Parts: sequence; structure tokens; C-alpha cells
Amino acid sequence: MSRPAHRRPEYHKINKDLFVLTYGALVAQLCKDYERDEDVNQYLDKMGYGIGTRLVEDFLARSCVRRCHSYSEITDIIAQVAFKMYLGITPSVTCNNSSRNEFSLILDKNPLVEFVEKLPPGRSSLCYCNLLCGIIRGALEMVHLAADVTFLQDRLKGDSVTEIGITFLKKLDEKKYRRKK
Amino acid sequence: MSRPAHRRPEYHKINKDLFVLTYGALVAQLCKDYERDEDVNQYLDKMGYGIGTRLVEDFLARSCVRRCHSYSEITDIIAQVAFKMYLGITPSVTCNNSSRNEFSLILDKNPLVEFVEKLPPGRSSLCYCNLLCGIIRGALEMVHLAADVTFLQDRLKGDSVTEIGITFLKKLDEKKYRRKK
Repeated sequence: MSRPAHRRPEYHKINKDLFVLTYGALVAQLCKDYERDEDVNQYLDKMGYGIGTRLVEDFLARSCVRRCHSYSEITDIIAQVAFKMYLGITPSVTCNNSSRNEFSLILDKNPLVEFVEKLPPGRSSLCYCNLLCGIIRGALEMVHLAADVTFLQDRLKGDSVTEIGITFLKKLDEKKYRRKK
Repeated sequence: MSRPAHRRPEYHKINKDLFVLTYGALVAQLCKDYERDEDVNQYLDKMGYGIGTRLVEDFLARSCVRRCHSYSEITDIIAQVAFKMYLGITPSVTCNNSSRNEFSLILDKNPLVEFVEKLPPGRSSLCYCNLLCGIIRGALEMVHLAADVTFLQDRLKGDSVTEIGITFLKKLDEKKYRRKK
């Protein structure tokens, strides 16, 4: 299932509901396959990672973002450009530590859970949207940035907001982080 | 995972690549789960059915289509309104029999396979996009129309076009097929 090199997408937008419901079907299938929430979460993260490594090329081509000089800039681009482009929302960003490598994306709205009122019964540890963490992790790795990406808060679990934590794991090496020419 | 009654989506469009890659992950997961292509196809159809039954309400609300008086009209709406709205493409429609209950949707382009060059090894009977058949079947059933919906041709299998066949199974009962007021 590799991607043909000549592919040039002509239409970029589709109706969100189809995606949201298909994602729901994917999560339901994984819940059927794996008994433990941790395994479902891990699998969603792994799938997302694969998707992130493939999305990033298009993202860089389409967004025309320039090289970033700080983790803060990178996180702003994830929130303001990538989330906007792919999910139509713009999370707010906070920096969580003085060494400025830990950030949070705060999602007031989360389109992925629009059809979801609550977690399925007996699935209280499920990170329903963990695909997103994997996508961010995978995309960052493709630009040579290692990061931990996890849900810190989740409205589906009764928290007041949904919060994705991004911890960059090593010093930004500007030589490595260059856009492909 | 029921849908809250108060939900009012504010953004309707998302980037297609995210959906296409997520759909690919779903198909890959089902291929992992089920050895026989027939089982994967059936499962995709079943999932699609569930999605179709939920999408149809929004579709009717958003598209403002009027009551149809023939299978031909219904098929045209599927092709020209629903496919356009959800996948950004407009298949052409042919009628395949004199009793005018068998139709084909011919897809010159299929966004769902944009990242797919060929079927996975050993999966020659896989109907990769069978979710679409299930969605059409589920949506039609919600407006009291029983139909068989299957792939008749598939570019991924070497055919020159991708063709979805829709066979309406009983006489259109206009009393039943009314839009909700």
C-alpha cells in the first residue's frame, strides 16, 4: 500500500462527519480486538505515528512553513497551522516549564469526539483520540525531533478541557531540522 | 458512544489526507483481524452500514433534497449530491436494466485509494472501499429503501474504472419515503 510518487491530490477537503464516524469505527474495532485500554491506546498511537510520518511531507509542502528556531515556534505551528489544516480547529498553547521544552495544546473543541458522548462502558482508561498523539509524534520524528506526546486531560474523562502534552526530548539541532528542498 | 442531541457541527470540512490515511489504517487492522478477504469485505460493509444510518440525517438536513419519485432520481442524488458532499467527487450514473432498478456509479477518481497503489499481498479479493457500499446501503435503508450495493469493478483489481452497483430491491413506496419534517 505504498504511495505512488506521481500522486497530486486535486481536492483537499472532505466532509468531517464521514471521517469522525470512520474514526469511531476504528476505535470500536480496536476495543473489540484488545481487552486492555492500554493496548488500544498504544495501538492508536502506533497507527497515528505511521500516519504522521506520511502526512508531514504534504504538510510541509502545503503549509510553506519556514525553519523553526525554538520548540515554542514548532508547537505554535502544530496548533495554528497543522490542527487548523487537518481538523479545522486551533488549540491554544501553553509552555509548562522553564526549560521551554514542555508544552500543552488545549483543545476547547475536539471534532473527533463530536459523535461521542462518553467513553464506552468499562473503558475508563481509553484515550479515544490517541491517534492524534501518534500523528504529532510521527510527524515530529520526520523532522528529526523526538517528543513524548500524550493526553494530559480529556473531556471524555470528565476533565474541563482536552489537553495534549508535548515534551521535546532533546535539544533542537538546527542543522538537522531543515525543510526538504 | 451515542450522539448528543444538541450537537451542532460548526465546521464541516477537514483535510482529506487525514481521513484517507485513517481509513487505510482501519482496513489494515481488519486485514490483520480477518484472514479471509470475504470477512474483511463483510465487516467493512457492516461498519459502513452503521455509518450510513447515522450520516443520512445530516445529509438530508444539509442537502435539502426533496422527495424523489424514481430510483433514477435517488441514484442521481447519491452521485451528484452525496458523493460530492462527502468525498468531493461526482461519479457518473448508468442504468443497467429495463426495469430501472439497477444502476452503476462509475468513479473516475476514488479519493479513498489515493495512498494505495495496489492491494496488499495475498488480498486479491479485498474490496478495499467496501465501507462505501455499506454507507450507501445504510443510508438508503433509513429512508426505507432496501438495496444491494456492491463493487462491480475496481481499479485496484486491474479494472479500467471503479464501479459501484446499486440494485433497489423493492418497489419505491412513496408513502414511506418521505423526508422528516
